[in-house]
Amino acid sequence: MSDTISHQLPTGFQTTGITCGIKESGKPDLAVFLSECPAVSAGVFTRNLVCGAPVTVSKQRVGRESSRAVVINSGNANACTGEKGVADAESMTARLAEGLDCDPEDVLVCSTGIIGHFLPLEKITTGLKQVLPQLGGESTHLKSAAQAIMTTDTFPKISSREVVVNGKPIRITGVCKGAAMIAPNMATMLSVIMTDAALTVQQADRLLRHAVNRSFNCVSVEGHTSTSDTVLLLANGAAGTGAVEDAELGGFSAALDQVSEELAQMIVRDAEGADHFVTIDVTGLETFADAYRIAKVIAEGPLVKTAITGNDPNWGRIVSAAGYAGVDFDPLAVTLHLNQTLLYEKGQPVDYDEEAVSKSMASGEVHIELNCGTGTERIRFWTCDLTQEYVRLNSEYTT
Amino acid sequence: MSDTISHQLPTGFQTTGITCGIKESGKPDLAVFLSECPAVSAGVFTRNLVCGAPVTVSKQRVGRESSRAVVINSGNANACTGEKGVADAESMTARLAEGLDCDPEDVLVCSTGIIGHFLPLEKITTGLKQVLPQLGGESTHLKSAAQAIMTTDTFPKISSREVVVNGKPIRITGVCKGAAMIAPNMATMLSVIMTDAALTVQQADRLLRHAVNRSFNCVSVEGHTSTSDTVLLLANGAAGTGAVEDAELGGFSAALDQVSEELAQMIVRDAEGADHFVTIDVTGLETFADAYRIAKVIAEGPLVKTAITGNDPNWGRIVSAAGYAGVDFDPLAVTLHLNQTLLYEKGQPVDYDEEAVSKSMASGEVHIELNCGTGTERIRFWTCDLTQEYVRLNSEYTT
Repeated sequence: MSDTISHQLPTGFQTTGITCGIKESGKPDLAVFLSECPAVSAGVFTRNLVCGAPVTVSKQRVGRESSRAVVINSGNANACTGEKGVADAESMTARLAEGLDCDPEDVLVCSTGIIGHFLPLEKITTGLKQVLPQLGGESTHLKSAAQAIMTTDTFPKISSREVVVNGKPIRITGVCKGAAMIAPNMATMLSVIMTDAALTVQQADRLLRHAVNRSFNCVSVEGHTSTSDTVLLLANGAAGTGAVEDAELGGFSAALDQVSEELAQMIVRDAEGADHFVTIDVTGLETFADAYRIAKVIAEGPLVKTAITGNDPNWGRIVSAAGYAGVDFDPLAVTLHLNQTLLYEKGQPVDYDEEAVSKSMASGEVHIELNCGTGTERIRFWTCDLTQEYVRLNSEYTT
Repeated sequence: MSDTISHQLPTGFQTTGITCGIKESGKPDLAVFLSECPAVSAGVFTRNLVCGAPVTVSKQRVGRESSRAVVINSGNANACTGEKGVADAESMTARLAEGLDCDPEDVLVCSTGIIGHFLPLEKITTGLKQVLPQLGGESTHLKSAAQAIMTTDTFPKISSREVVVNGKPIRITGVCKGAAMIAPNMATMLSVIMTDAALTVQQADRLLRHAVNRSFNCVSVEGHTSTSDTVLLLANGAAGTGAVEDAELGGFSAALDQVSEELAQMIVRDAEGADHFVTIDVTGLETFADAYRIAKVIAEGPLVKTAITGNDPNWGRIVSAAGYAGVDFDPLAVTLHLNQTLLYEKGQPVDYDEEAVSKSMASGEVHIELNCGTGTERIRFWTCDLTQEYVRLNSEYTT
């Protein structure tokens, strides 16, 4: 998917990915994302109380103006590993900081893979020594890094945009890895987004949260919040924009939203065992939070998902899922379209061509539009279907 | 399951079930539960905003001292049918009230089956005329009624208990139908519980809610709240207990809890495509609501369910599901047992015999005990696994 496009790094960033031997498969499992100069950092993290050690460490280190690098390993999540896990995550950053001659606090860390096992620190230490001479700013380096953070992903996920800020062309480039869960790993959603625009700590935090709330937080495969979900933003100002007023950041914010949305969509398209890509528009609510709750319940409803698997325009499952989302709306104001066909209007079913709608669903693209008719707030959410293959993949004995 | 036990009706109740032709299969689809004398009624209903018309009607009619009957049809849920649906549900009760020579307001109504279609009122009217002469108080009559409310259930569900109240033996007898969803029907959980004890309206309401909160509200197949879920209690006092002080109702309340729990468990055991029956004990929380939230998230987590399908003692999925339930607890205080084996202690994995635990899961009975270590409140919850067969059943094209 992203293989066909050659994405560039923003100015002043270097990256790469290598194999250090954590994965038995011998596939790449260690990536570094480096800013040549100090960068402002921001992060959004899993809300799971049972979080990975790297989440604990990185949470304390975002929001600085001197961040230099992100180090990520795949194959081991360093989660449910207690205090030793936190010490190991800190060691990982310290080893990289030595090589970069910077403060360990300026290095962020993520891990993804099997949980409940301690990190193979020696392999990582050896790997980090090999990484530094291989870092580079070419698109091939970016692709190597995107590949090294993959777990069960079937393709590397990269997105980028160029916009003009303060008269200077700047770039936003992000990578991520997928959300689908596969035993025994708890496959986590991780993303690193880099930009050469100059942002304040406050701007970076606000704009990243805005983007995440409309992208990574709007995708769900099965609703299991991972122990390690992390989205990081590094802004190094190397494009020479100088300080940017909030009012001048509209274009940048839109581009950051687009990069985040594109990455989030790739996660859904790469979900384990999924046959359908589903876009859910929920409109006509009084608050964004209400629209979000309804969209999430529809996206995660096994009966909605299995109806989509069967190309079944089963409006009853969608409308009744909205009804149990815990949001107050008038059921007699609800209207539903599926792939642009009206199925349900003002709380009543309408006649429609079932065969035609089912046929359109068989294309693999499904668009649900639910208008609750009681306000002006809206949300767009993405999910996939629930297949026998998903159950097979996730029920094979693996512990 | 309940076929092997012969359950008796409480004194002063008659019931039966017949075929009136709603179901194309020709299976029984109309049941009446009658108290020969006025009874106190209580009800607990679905919280789905998109609720069936019978829910709207019955909600307004519980909490009376003069209730006489419950009429239930299967094969058509009379949901998403607008104002005509409500009028149809009222007509159903009026036709039965004519035959009984009582106020229509003293008749309660439930419907379960396909949604979005109007009731075939003529068939029901004709059926109700046939029902009255067939009513009776024998266990065969009870079984007929339990069969007539079934949709995709594979066996009728009946439970009963006898206890002494105010020196008199009284009986509590309940029937229910299952929760598993099968397309195109939204299979609803319905239950009618009858007793010949004398209760006030307040006692009936309080004791029924107590029982439902520890039984029907503690089972989940896939978390899709139906449009029509209803549990009704009728207490007619025919056992001659006379008014009962609250302090004398402990034994009655325990028996009502047991009947409700037994019925709720039968629903899970009869869930579509399920291979495992799962009991979840969540303990050590500060509030019952906290324990409930965690148990529900574990019960409904597709990754927990599929691990159980594969007899995989995957503690990571269980512990991390608890972590995203939105409840505050100390992850380092959490301890987990699976089928009596310790897997995780105080936030750390422990060594255990994986093969032995997996083998015990293969029996089809799984017991999860999660102690969150931060309080004294607890809950017991029941669920089933998620199988390829479930997906197959629910994804077949059916609209």
